[in-house]
Amino acid sequence: MESEPISNDQKQQQQQEPMEWAPTAWAHLSAVRNQSPLIQCITNYVSMDLVANTLLSAGASPAMLHSVEEIPDFTPHIHALYINVGTLSPDWLPAMKVAAELASKSGKPWVLDPVAASASGFRLKACLELVGLKPTIIRGNASEIIALSNASVGPTKGVDSSHESMDAVDAAKRLAEAGGNIVAVSGVVDIITDGKRIVGVHNGVPMMQKITATGCSVTALIAAFVAVDPSHAFEATASALSVFGIAGEMGMDIAKGPASLRIHMIDSLYGLDQAAMLSRVHIRSLP
Amino acid sequence: MESEPISNDQKQQQQQEPMEWAPTAWAHLSAVRNQSPLIQCITNYVSMDLVANTLLSAGASPAMLHSVEEIPDFTPHIHALYINVGTLSPDWLPAMKVAAELASKSGKPWVLDPVAASASGFRLKACLELVGLKPTIIRGNASEIIALSNASVGPTKGVDSSHESMDAVDAAKRLAEAGGNIVAVSGVVDIITDGKRIVGVHNGVPMMQKITATGCSVTALIAAFVAVDPSHAFEATASALSVFGIAGEMGMDIAKGPASLRIHMIDSLYGLDQAAMLSRVHIRSLP
Amino acid sequence: MESEPISNDQKQQQQQEPMEWAPTAWAHLSAVRNQSPLIQCITNYVSMDLVANTLLSAGASPAMLHSVEEIPDFTPHIHALYINVGTLSPDWLPAMKVAAELASKSGKPWVLDPVAASASGFRLKACLELVGLKPTIIRGNASEIIALSNASVGPTKGVDSSHESMDAVDAAKRLAEAGGNIVAVSGVVDIITDGKRIVGVHNGVPMMQKITATGCSVTALIAAFVAVDPSHAFEATASALSVFGIAGEMGMDIAKGPASLRIHMIDSLYGLDQAAMLSRVHIRSLP
Repeated sequence: MESEPISNDQKQQQQQEPMEWAPTAWAHLSAVRNQSPLIQCITNYVSMDLVANTLLSAGASPAMLHSVEEIPDFTPHIHALYINVGTLSPDWLPAMKVAAELASKSGKPWVLDPVAASASGFRLKACLELVGLKPTIIRGNASEIIALSNASVGPTKGVDSSHESMDAVDAAKRLAEAGGNIVAVSGVVDIITDGKRIVGVHNGVPMMQKITATGCSVTALIAAFVAVDPSHAFEATASALSVFGIAGEMGMDIAKGPASLRIHMIDSLYGLDQAAMLSRVHIRSLP
Repeated sequence: MESEPISNDQKQQQQQEPMEWAPTAWAHLSAVRNQSPLIQCITNYVSMDLVANTLLSAGASPAMLHSVEEIPDFTPHIHALYINVGTLSPDWLPAMKVAAELASKSGKPWVLDPVAASASGFRLKACLELVGLKPTIIRGNASEIIALSNASVGPTKGVDSSHESMDAVDAAKRLAEAGGNIVAVSGVVDIITDGKRIVGVHNGVPMMQKITATGCSVTALIAAFVAVDPSHAFEATASALSVFGIAGEMGMDIAKGPASLRIHMIDSLYGLDQAAMLSRVHIRSLP
Repeated sequence: MESEPISNDQKQQQQQEPMEWAPTAWAHLSAVRNQSPLIQCITNYVSMDLVANTLLSAGASPAMLHSVEEIPDFTPHIHALYINVGTLSPDWLPAMKVAAELASKSGKPWVLDPVAASASGFRLKACLELVGLKPTIIRGNASEIIALSNASVGPTKGVDSSHESMDAVDAAKRLAEAGGNIVAVSGVVDIITDGKRIVGVHNGVPMMQKITATGCSVTALIAAFVAVDPSHAFEATASALSVFGIAGEMGMDIAKGPASLRIHMIDSLYGLDQAAMLSRVHIRSLP
């Protein structure tokens, strides 16, 4: 798989122009479909099915290998790594670290989903150790990003956020600046920042929060998008969040509840065409 | 989350009046939607997806944390605990016990699903140890409840029951009386008993048995219902079994097989309104 | 459960007659529905949900028990064993081996799905050890079968095949001859061989590859089919691959993408009738 930059410098300079985002997002999705990047997923038990189906529907090739024994042989062949701590236990952590280190060392992008980061001291410590291994991108909800940024254990509402994404803008910026990575905060508006630039993705529908593992799945999609444009992680992240949101919007047109939305969302992701993308991508720079 | 008793003593005295159950069940579902109780689930791999989606669709907040390291920090914040032994292994058992003990100690309701209790000596022993930690509610099929009550390893047909629920009435009563808990037996008619009182829930459709993890999911729903009415575990259990059965009945109206039934059942649970509840709840006292 | 041979010797002699396969496949499916064989599945996390629902929809009884502690008590009661190494880790391997040995010793059929066999040295070694325990049937994609046959670690594209099934015919024959088992290679045309005979199954649709765990699920279905006709593993394998493919074809008639195809495929498997089977089974001898 050879990847050529999708979002060139000219595009970056023009990022203030809202109309530029739609073709960029379409170019990312097209590249995933054409190149079928291999994405290693070390993710939680709850999300494995939806994560794999999301990646397949987008055109990527998921591989759910989590054994530390396999990483030296397998991880060098991947195009991006996705780590999600949802159902973390001590025996899974070493493989996460070894895979993250190997990805970082070999210049492969890797993406962290710090699910329920503040749920326990054990989990927060694990998340901070993973953050220390330089993920290319961190995607969480507002509570998770605030917890990582503050590095403190606070009261938490399970895996659901008790904050809005806009509450976490400063925390996201600080986290991004400290680590030199891209930080994305999911919410009614998804926030993406590299510490300086900041954009909001306005796609998606509220009912997506009533489906388990949608957060995990969009983070996996981010991994697939950055796999085909590794030098533009900021743009790839915004594109993936927009594409997944659009799939949800289109699914919502015919859904009767969260379970049928899940089905129609994946179908829509699979069938998403250029016309729908160009009219629906809604990404705006934030002040 | 503050919960006020939904099923008051007056209602308990009037339990012989069939018409009382429908508003009680509706009150339970409404309370779950309003209060969004946090339910910790230590459940089997097969069921995690459907369990989480069932809880989300009902308005509850699921959290699949199973590490013993996390329980001291996390479990004190939950509103109810759900333990399911479906894919039991020795390394998962300590966390189940620690969480159950912590829930019991702090007065949080917890619910046990003793999947395939008699499948092996190891499994039966584990289930009996968990029963000894005083679950608020035990929900199983007839074979599982009989096995726990007899505490003997017998021939079993995997995870499916080889008995009808009515065969297990005496076993359920003995088990409930011995442990001081509520025991529910799933079947064509679901049986709920506290050792003295006994009601039957006549909702549901046979095809639900052709969907994996429906038993696991209704037990999780019981945990959400008892979370919002912890002083009336008997009523909460009957309400949850009825609500899940109704969701299945309504899903069956448009299902073409077990996979579409699963989708429509979850959609129906999400959309279930008062009118449907009041006309469909079918709970009757048994002699 | 008493099983009488479905594919008698006369049928075997007539295997060159294409018209014989449709009634044979229908007889296998009917026997699964009537006898509801108990299938123990030691499979990967990603596939557990779809594997269980596939078996339930076909009329079989799945049991996902994977603890080595339970195998001596439980495995003697099963009708077939299914082992899948998709999310292999060292702690799962002993149970796989003990269960496979017990199944072999007691004459129960067992089926191996060597997912991504060449992804790592650890995985290939584990797969070869399992092959050494004499699986009745091995079902993989072309890359997996070639890897097992060559017993060499090669470059791999995750869990997806980088070869067509026809590329693996010789490798499949060698593997089958060396081990005395049936080897099936999934692809546009599924190949089944016992080392001498070889047939191709022409059912199925390409979009099934965009659904995670379809390969795992059809291997589980093979286990259910051989459970009801253990003396004709070759025929049972071809029947199961054809039935699953037909379910996919019928699901495709109304699917709008991979997620709805998954739903309609399982619904179709549940509802599959004799007329559809007799007109759609497409199994042909290959030269």
